[in-house]
Amino acid sequence: MADITLDELNRSDASSFVTRLANVYEHAPWAAERAFAARPFATVAALHAAMHAAVRAASDGERSALIKAHPDLAGKAARAGALTAESTSEQLTAGLDRLSEEEFDAFHRLNTAYREKFDIPFIVSVRRHTKDSIIASFERRLMHDAAAERATALAEIDRIAALRLESLVAGDGSLRLDGRLSTHVLDTHLGRPATGVAIELRELSRRNAPRTIARAVTNADGRTDAPLIAGRPVPIGSYELIFAVGDYFKSRGVTLSDPPFLDLVPLRFGIAEAEGNYHVPLVMTPWSFSTYRGS
Amino acid sequence: MADITLDELNRSDASSFVTRLANVYEHAPWAAERAFAARPFATVAALHAAMHAAVRAASDGERSALIKAHPDLAGKAARAGALTAESTSEQLTAGLDRLSEEEFDAFHRLNTAYREKFDIPFIVSVRRHTKDSIIASFERRLMHDAAAERATALAEIDRIAALRLESLVAGDGSLRLDGRLSTHVLDTHLGRPATGVAIELRELSRRNAPRTIARAVTNADGRTDAPLIAGRPVPIGSYELIFAVGDYFKSRGVTLSDPPFLDLVPLRFGIAEAEGNYHVPLVMTPWSFSTYRGS
Amino acid sequence: MADITLDELNRSDASSFVTRLANVYEHAPWAAERAFAARPFATVAALHAAMHAAVRAASDGERSALIKAHPDLAGKAARAGALTAESTSEQLTAGLDRLSEEEFDAFHRLNTAYREKFDIPFIVSVRRHTKDSIIASFERRLMHDAAAERATALAEIDRIAALRLESLVAGDGSLRLDGRLSTHVLDTHLGRPATGVAIELRELSRRNAPRTIARAVTNADGRTDAPLIAGRPVPIGSYELIFAVGDYFKSRGVTLSDPPFLDLVPLRFGIAEAEGNYHVPLVMTPWSFSTYRGS
Amino acid sequence: MADITLDELNRSDASSFVTRLANVYEHAPWAAERAFAARPFATVAALHAAMHAAVRAASDGERSALIKAHPDLAGKAARAGALTAESTSEQLTAGLDRLSEEEFDAFHRLNTAYREKFDIPFIVSVRRHTKDSIIASFERRLMHDAAAERATALAEIDRIAALRLESLVAGDGSLRLDGRLSTHVLDTHLGRPATGVAIELRELSRRNAPRTIARAVTNADGRTDAPLIAGRPVPIGSYELIFAVGDYFKSRGVTLSDPPFLDLVPLRFGIAEAEGNYHVPLVMTPWSFSTYRGS
Repeated sequence: MADITLDELNRSDASSFVTRLANVYEHAPWAAERAFAARPFATVAALHAAMHAAVRAASDGERSALIKAHPDLAGKAARAGALTAESTSEQLTAGLDRLSEEEFDAFHRLNTAYREKFDIPFIVSVRRHTKDSIIASFERRLMHDAAAERATALAEIDRIAALRLESLVAGDGSLRLDGRLSTHVLDTHLGRPATGVAIELRELSRRNAPRTIARAVTNADGRTDAPLIAGRPVPIGSYELIFAVGDYFKSRGVTLSDPPFLDLVPLRFGIAEAEGNYHVPLVMTPWSFSTYRGS
Repeated sequence: MADITLDELNRSDASSFVTRLANVYEHAPWAAERAFAARPFATVAALHAAMHAAVRAASDGERSALIKAHPDLAGKAARAGALTAESTSEQLTAGLDRLSEEEFDAFHRLNTAYREKFDIPFIVSVRRHTKDSIIASFERRLMHDAAAERATALAEIDRIAALRLESLVAGDGSLRLDGRLSTHVLDTHLGRPATGVAIELRELSRRNAPRTIARAVTNADGRTDAPLIAGRPVPIGSYELIFAVGDYFKSRGVTLSDPPFLDLVPLRFGIAEAEGNYHVPLVMTPWSFSTYRGS
Repeated sequence: MADITLDELNRSDASSFVTRLANVYEHAPWAAERAFAARPFATVAALHAAMHAAVRAASDGERSALIKAHPDLAGKAARAGALTAESTSEQLTAGLDRLSEEEFDAFHRLNTAYREKFDIPFIVSVRRHTKDSIIASFERRLMHDAAAERATALAEIDRIAALRLESLVAGDGSLRLDGRLSTHVLDTHLGRPATGVAIELRELSRRNAPRTIARAVTNADGRTDAPLIAGRPVPIGSYELIFAVGDYFKSRGVTLSDPPFLDLVPLRFGIAEAEGNYHVPLVMTPWSFSTYRGS
Repeated sequence: MADITLDELNRSDASSFVTRLANVYEHAPWAAERAFAARPFATVAALHAAMHAAVRAASDGERSALIKAHPDLAGKAARAGALTAESTSEQLTAGLDRLSEEEFDAFHRLNTAYREKFDIPFIVSVRRHTKDSIIASFERRLMHDAAAERATALAEIDRIAALRLESLVAGDGSLRLDGRLSTHVLDTHLGRPATGVAIELRELSRRNAPRTIARAVTNADGRTDAPLIAGRPVPIGSYELIFAVGDYFKSRGVTLSDPPFLDLVPLRFGIAEAEGNYHVPLVMTPWSFSTYRGS
């Protein structure tokens, strides 16, 4: 999925090096220019550190310009298709391209209030968030003071840069930006992993209907063949896993009441650390179930 | 809540005895007339047995007339307000007065198909059912043969009579028509009953949005002061209990992630025996929960 | 079980009042004498409060004499049968009459060390303890200073007096000295209370083999007909409940592996509050079980 | 650990091939001789199949001699040190070298009764068993008829041969003779894997004190670095895992009662399939725990 290897970057001349990395920091090719001297980079993390150091060493004015170069979230530029490719793809991930009118109004109101108070755009690493958690952090951050928000904006810019680098450059040295969401279904009626259980993962929202983001069926070990989410941050937010427990036990020949005591079993939970490891198992019989944050 | 005591009934003359019990069997005062001779009744169950015996001993024609005297569920008579008071109240209980157009059409279609196939109205003790389970048994019973349906209709008429008697007459000797739904919240983070947990009980439906049917807050023992449903059948159907677990732990000073791993915790379950004892506890920490059919 | 009613005591003359209550405070009939004036007592708690007040108001010398009038635990007086009836019965309860030589030596060593350091006997309300927890508090209290131990001794004397009063005098107004230990067995394989499960309660000890202190079989509700311990303090200590889970499932016709995954299931737990309510349920299938401190 | 590779065996001449495999079937080098022709073997399983086929194709007399060549379990030959190296090592594994006098008498009695009834020695693959399960199958098999026992003896001989081959010869193609016992400790008080929990695995016996067979401490993922048992059959029998839960929570700074509600937590379970995968996790807080057969 990455566009270029670290090796190729290490062998590039300055011009193509900078072209490739021009938007790792939004509209700030100078971060790449200044990091170029530190070649070769042993790891992607080292490359990120060099660009990060360049930003930290830049003048206040350059950093202010960097902050202000960011577009509004779900703002006019996004509607008009005038974002960098990187921003467009990020805003898509978080679903900012499919806002209800009510949500669009909320974003508009929050963008305006934020710019009025701080004179900078609201910056957040949207790949780490759901729409709900973006709005929640928007509201929380509006209460801060200007110095704190400037620091937060720079920290978020750095997270964005790290994620952009990781998807752009293939190479050793993970930046440890991945989270993980997985499940496991154990049948303690029959004493074995539950095979063939249909599972649906849904993102919940205070303002919208649930959105299905993954479907899977458990394998011979009671797990899904791949984690439900892996290789990227798990967006901070509220989720529901729904397990077709009634159908599973029927398929195993277990006699159930009508309707069964347990049929579709939802487990609702929140993700707070986008880089965390969330294992959410279901241990069940036709008459009981339990879950816990596992590992 | 009952209108009359068994004692008063035992001391009534035939005319007021029959008047009082005229619609225990729908439009069939003769069931009361024929049971009158067996006075006095030691228990409400004995009174029910006497009326039941009268129906069993009636001629085929009388029993057919009794069956046909029942109104359609959610039918024209209900819309026109032309039901007995008993039927009106029962159809209200199951929510048959607030059908969506789609549901109304479903009932109309099923009533018509049933009458066409069996030449009798579809009879079911609606106090034991939700709309969903009425439609489910409608569909199931449409597949039976005429003899089985006539027997089922008479059995349902008898259940209806028993429930009408129990709500009409106060006296010893429960007919054991009550079910029970209760819960209990245990906090295994702090090792004590969870006090002050807000709970909502919702009836789920395949066709409609969930309907809140009870709210409660747990007391010092982690229970609700009264069972969520008691003193009547628990309508067969699908339910969800929602517990405000996040708010509870916050109020106990437990530090939670943001959003919390567990916030609103739903337990979804089905009721198959309207007269059953369903105890559905929640055993929880900020990071785990379990439930089971308890007692 | 009580010897006398509060009513009778309220109607007694001073001499028989004092005779009856002479050893509520060990060898200190003066506590009863001085409380006599406060008659009548509405509750046993009020009687206890009056005697307690008399002790608090006594001179330092009287209180010292009261403390010193207590026998050593498991000491020579106990071996020689020279204790008050009350002390004898209490020391029996905690099993101080059946010490191994090793335990006898431990008590002897601790008694000697305690008397040497504090010049008073070691006083503890043995009805609230197991042998292990007596030795543990002995060791802990040996580290305190003299003032703290004098205060602790008087507090323990008061607890002893309260328990003696409660077993001596029948009347309103519980002193709330009772603890409770109970269990409940739920079968989540079949979805019902587990009936007919044999249960054994054993007291564990660091120095001795486990001692069976109760046996029971679960009833139709999955509970024991009476709590395992009630109407008295639950001695502080370490316990094990053993459930015959394998036999239960065999008797229900459930096919088990050989040997079964679960056969005799022990739940091991500690009691820290002698007046606490300890509910220790077992929720089980042939392949899983769980327990928690319930209510 | 293996003495020779499959490759070396495939390249051996007949004489050294037979010498190496002479006791795979006890005192029956002819099984190796007759399998030699089928060289080369792609897998150890194929080699086993060839030797197994030779035994199946042997005459009744040869098979009887093979059966009778086996020593008594814990018999005179074992005491006198007159067993094959293979038998000696196997009887050691199951602890048959450290019998109490009572156990020795039991074995003697059972050996005698078995030989009297069937005129053959009792043969069982002791690596798949504990002493208790050997005695249990001894007692069970004594009830069978001669034909069934002859078939069982040959089947056990084959299991013994497979296990001997697997430990003797390194090569592709597992015979799938391994079982596995593992655990995992989850802390649902703090919502993370429980690190640093001391664990002890003990083999239980009806006749003897428990025997510690493994100790471990959980790692950062709440697991032990290696499975408790792997790479060999898990002996059929009764076990107890003991977890130092109280010490763990104390080390995490959690305030516990004194004594703690949970301190040393035993999980007792039976192993019925020596080649099974037994995962026995502990999910716990200071006030609750659960386990189940996981995967």
